[in-house]
Amino acid sequence: MGLFSKDITTMDELYLHVLQDIYYAEQQIVSALPSMIERATDVDLKAGLSTHLSETEGHVTRLEMVFSLIGEEPQTVNCPAIDGILSEADDISSEAEAPVRDAAIAAAAQAVEHYEITRYGTLISWSKELGLGEAAEILTSTLEEEYAADDKLTELAEQRLNRLG
Amino acid sequence: MGLFSKDITTMDELYLHVLQDIYYAEQQIVSALPSMIERATDVDLKAGLSTHLSETEGHVTRLEMVFSLIGEEPQTVNCPAIDGILSEADDISSEAEAPVRDAAIAAAAQAVEHYEITRYGTLISWSKELGLGEAAEILTSTLEEEYAADDKLTELAEQRLNRLG
Repeated sequence: MGLFSKDITTMDELYLHVLQDIYYAEQQIVSALPSMIERATDVDLKAGLSTHLSETEGHVTRLEMVFSLIGEEPQTVNCPAIDGILSEADDISSEAEAPVRDAAIAAAAQAVEHYEITRYGTLISWSKELGLGEAAEILTSTLEEEYAADDKLTELAEQRLNRLG
Repeated sequence: MGLFSKDITTMDELYLHVLQDIYYAEQQIVSALPSMIERATDVDLKAGLSTHLSETEGHVTRLEMVFSLIGEEPQTVNCPAIDGILSEADDISSEAEAPVRDAAIAAAAQAVEHYEITRYGTLISWSKELGLGEAAEILTSTLEEEYAADDKLTELAEQRLNRLG
């Protein structure tokens, strides 16, 4: 279902839709991360992604708290965006050297982070607009972890660059 | 083709692949923006997206300069990520009130910006790694415009919030 589905005519409905979209996305990320961790070779990259897998499981729980705050059952809607992003990370070349594989995995993970950052940013703004202060706080905790995960991946890329320099 | 296609085994091949991916994405964005501009109602949102359409046309040209720098013909690869993101912005409800429509359009535009931000960030890092300083500079000019476009959309959302408060 698109963001502008014909079923969506109010801000409440739009908010619920994007909540369901990111709820689906977080679940898909929980499913996809173990394979990315397994294929990564750099110790720090593996550790960073493993930490983020635990965090992501917490993000799913936090979203369930937000559903509860607005009196809705947690439900997903298809999210072609995250499906597209994750499909780009799905087919690894066993021929690629380890640093190439790690670079590609880190890039895919950063694309995932940025999708989450944009969706949580939007939901926090709309929570405030709709007077949902507690939801805004819960979602902000998650957004901060997404930013930290993205920063960590950028840092790993810079360390690799410094080792070359 | 996934980021880890079996055809990709070196950093040079990975770099070219992501360049082709964002070249496709920028072209799809040039195609998608006019409809988003047409459906938007807020004057500032319309103006911001129109400015960004002109910038995006420039981004396509800059990517062609980078292809030339590495001695490759500009070519695209399918990018399921941007297809997914844009498909979420494709089906507008004619029943939705103007502010709901604008909120959804702005959210879709920010998802597009964040996809570009992550891909350009990756390409700039890899350009430095591969000794492609001029390419890094060209791509940085684009990245700065993507950040500015995202900031502008956040600012518009905050203004709307302040009008409510």
